[in-house]
Amino acid sequence: MRFIHETLPQRVVFAPGAAPAAVAAEVAALKATQVMLVAAPAVAALADRLAADLPVAVRHHEVVMHVPVDVAERARKAATKGAVDALVCVGGGSTTGLAKAVALTTGLPIVAVPTTYAGSEATNVWGLTEGEVKTTGVDPRVLPRSIVYDASLLTGLPVEMSVASGLNALAHCVDSMWGPRADPIDRALAFEGIRALSEGLAAVTADPTGPEGREQTLYGAYLAAVAFASAGSGLHHRICHVLGGMFDLPHAQTHAVVLPHVLAFNAPAVPETERRIAEAFGSPTAVAGLTALRGTLHAPRALRDYGMPKDGIARAVAPVLAAVPAGNPTAVTEENLTALLRAAWEGSDPV
Amino acid sequence: MRFIHETLPQRVVFAPGAAPAAVAAEVAALKATQVMLVAAPAVAALADRLAADLPVAVRHHEVVMHVPVDVAERARKAATKGAVDALVCVGGGSTTGLAKAVALTTGLPIVAVPTTYAGSEATNVWGLTEGEVKTTGVDPRVLPRSIVYDASLLTGLPVEMSVASGLNALAHCVDSMWGPRADPIDRALAFEGIRALSEGLAAVTADPTGPEGREQTLYGAYLAAVAFASAGSGLHHRICHVLGGMFDLPHAQTHAVVLPHVLAFNAPAVPETERRIAEAFGSPTAVAGLTALRGTLHAPRALRDYGMPKDGIARAVAPVLAAVPAGNPTAVTEENLTALLRAAWEGSDPV
Repeated sequence: MRFIHETLPQRVVFAPGAAPAAVAAEVAALKATQVMLVAAPAVAALADRLAADLPVAVRHHEVVMHVPVDVAERARKAATKGAVDALVCVGGGSTTGLAKAVALTTGLPIVAVPTTYAGSEATNVWGLTEGEVKTTGVDPRVLPRSIVYDASLLTGLPVEMSVASGLNALAHCVDSMWGPRADPIDRALAFEGIRALSEGLAAVTADPTGPEGREQTLYGAYLAAVAFASAGSGLHHRICHVLGGMFDLPHAQTHAVVLPHVLAFNAPAVPETERRIAEAFGSPTAVAGLTALRGTLHAPRALRDYGMPKDGIARAVAPVLAAVPAGNPTAVTEENLTALLRAAWEGSDPV
Repeated sequence: MRFIHETLPQRVVFAPGAAPAAVAAEVAALKATQVMLVAAPAVAALADRLAADLPVAVRHHEVVMHVPVDVAERARKAATKGAVDALVCVGGGSTTGLAKAVALTTGLPIVAVPTTYAGSEATNVWGLTEGEVKTTGVDPRVLPRSIVYDASLLTGLPVEMSVASGLNALAHCVDSMWGPRADPIDRALAFEGIRALSEGLAAVTADPTGPEGREQTLYGAYLAAVAFASAGSGLHHRICHVLGGMFDLPHAQTHAVVLPHVLAFNAPAVPETERRIAEAFGSPTAVAGLTALRGTLHAPRALRDYGMPKDGIARAVAPVLAAVPAGNPTAVTEENLTALLRAAWEGSDPV
C-alpha cells in the first residue's frame, strides 16, 4: 500500500425537490450578495425558480459546448462588469464548464446545480477550446465550493440519455480501479458508485418518472467523478479516446460497447477488485454483473453498428498500445488487444 | 436521500518504510523552511530520523495527555519564538492534539506522522483541558494538511494495544452508520474501514511483527476517523461516554465490550446497512462478523470484569436515555436499553 491521495474540499448537498432553498443556503454560507447565475436558455424556467431566492446581479445565458475561449471571455467580462462575488451554474457539463472558466481567472466561488449525470461539478478539471484545439488543466479554483443535487431537476431527461450518461459514469468507476493514480480510497468510492449506478439505472429504466432511480444515479455519478478525477484515465478511456478520434464514433455508445471488454480483460489480474465489483453489482462475477445490467438497459453491443470499419481493428492497435497507461493490471499485447477490439467491433461476449 | 456532506481537504500519503523522505516531500510542497518538530521523548529516535531530512528550527518535546492549556501555550510560544512556518508532529493522539492546539491560534500547517491508530490526524477536531474541564471544538485550521502513514513506525506497538486501538477505530466505523449527521458517503467510507480493520486486526494478531496487518489497520483507522468526524457520535459512543464517566471504566475495554450489543440493537432496523457490514466482515451477518473477529482477538466480554457494579445497569439508564442521538435506527426505551446494558455487564451474547 503505497500511494498519495488528495482529498479535495467540497460541500455536497442532496436536496430532493428543494434546490432553490438549498442553493440559497449555500450562497448565504459564502456570504455572497451579488450572484452571477449561469444557465442556458433551455433551462431558463428552472433558473427563474432559483433566481427568486438569490441575490442575482447578472444572468448569463450564452453556453456553448466545449467552452470556446471567446464565450468564456464574454462570461468573465460579464462577471467583472457586474462586480459579482459568486457564480451559480445550473445545467449540464457545458454550463459547469463555463462557470469553471470564469472561476479560473477570477477566483470566484461556484455553487453548481447539475441537471445531468456529467459529474464535472465534482472535479477540479477545466477545459477550453480554441478552434479545434481543446486545452484542459487542473486548478483548485475551478472546483465548485458546493454542489446541490436535486433529482427532481432531472425528471425531464429522456431515459435513453440517462442510460448513456449513467453508463459513462459507470465507465469512470470501472476505470478508476486501474487508472495511473488509482489508490484504495478511489476504489472504495468507485465500488460505492458502481453499486449506486447499477441500482439507479435499473430503477430509471423500470420507472422513468420515479425519483429514486435518478437520485441513486446522481449519487453514483458524483462518486464516479470524484474517483476518476483522482485515479486518472485508465485503459478503457484510452481505448475509447483513440477509437472515437480515429473513426468519429459517438461518445456514449463507444463507452457502453467497450466497457465490458476492458473489464473482462483486466479483471482476472486483480481478483480482489473483481470480487468487490461483483459484490457491488450484486452478481457472482464482475463481468456477469455488468452484462446483466447492460441487458436490462438494452445497451449498445457492437462498434460496427456505429460506423467503425472492420479494418479499423488492425489500424487502432498501434495507437492504443502507445496510449496504455502505466500499471494496467493485464499486460497489453498486440495479440490480446486485437482480440479485445475485435470482440467490441463484432459485439461478441467479452472473454 | 437528503443530506449535506462536507469533504475536508487533506493529502494522505501511505509510504511504508519511507516516512522520512515522504515527510520531507510534504514539507517541501508547503514551501516551509523553518519547521517545528513536535515529538514526545519516547519517540526521540524516530524524530531524529525525520529531522535529518527536514529544515528543523525548533524541536518540541513536552507532550501531555489531553493537551493542558499551559502545555499548549508553551508550544505556541516556542513556535512563535522560532518563527516557524510549519509543524511536523510525530506520535499518537496527544502529540497530534498539541500540534492542533498550536495550529488553532497560529494557523500554521501541520504534517502529521501517526505512530498509533488514534485517527485524530484525519479530523478537524481540537481539544484542550484546563484543570478537570475538557473543551473541544471544530476548526479548519487544525486539520493537518498532510498525513504520512508508515506502518513500519508501528511495529513496536504491543499487539494488545493494537487490538484495543483497532477495536476503538472499528467502533468509530460502526457508529458512523447512525450518527446524527451520518450520510451515505460516511457509510461507504465506514464499510471500507470495517473491511480493512477486520482483515488488519486479524493479521496483526496472527503475525504481530508483519507489516501488512498494521498497514491495513492504519488505513482502516484513517477511514474510521474521517467517517466518524463527519457522522458524529452515535448511540455506541453516547453509552460508552456515560458508563466511562459514571464508573471510571477503562476506555478501550468499554468500547470493545459495548460495541456488539449496540450493533445487535440497531442492525434489525437498518437491514441494508446490516447486510453491507456483514459483507465488509465477510460474514453471513453483521453481528456474526463482529463476534468472530472479537473471538480471534480475544476481546474483552463483560463490563463487570472492569469494575462496573451490577446496580450500575439501572443507574445508567436515565443518563443514557437523555443522551440518545436523534435518528437512532431502533427506538431506545428504558426496557430495551436495560437489556442491552445487562448483556454488556454480564458478557452474554448480543441479542
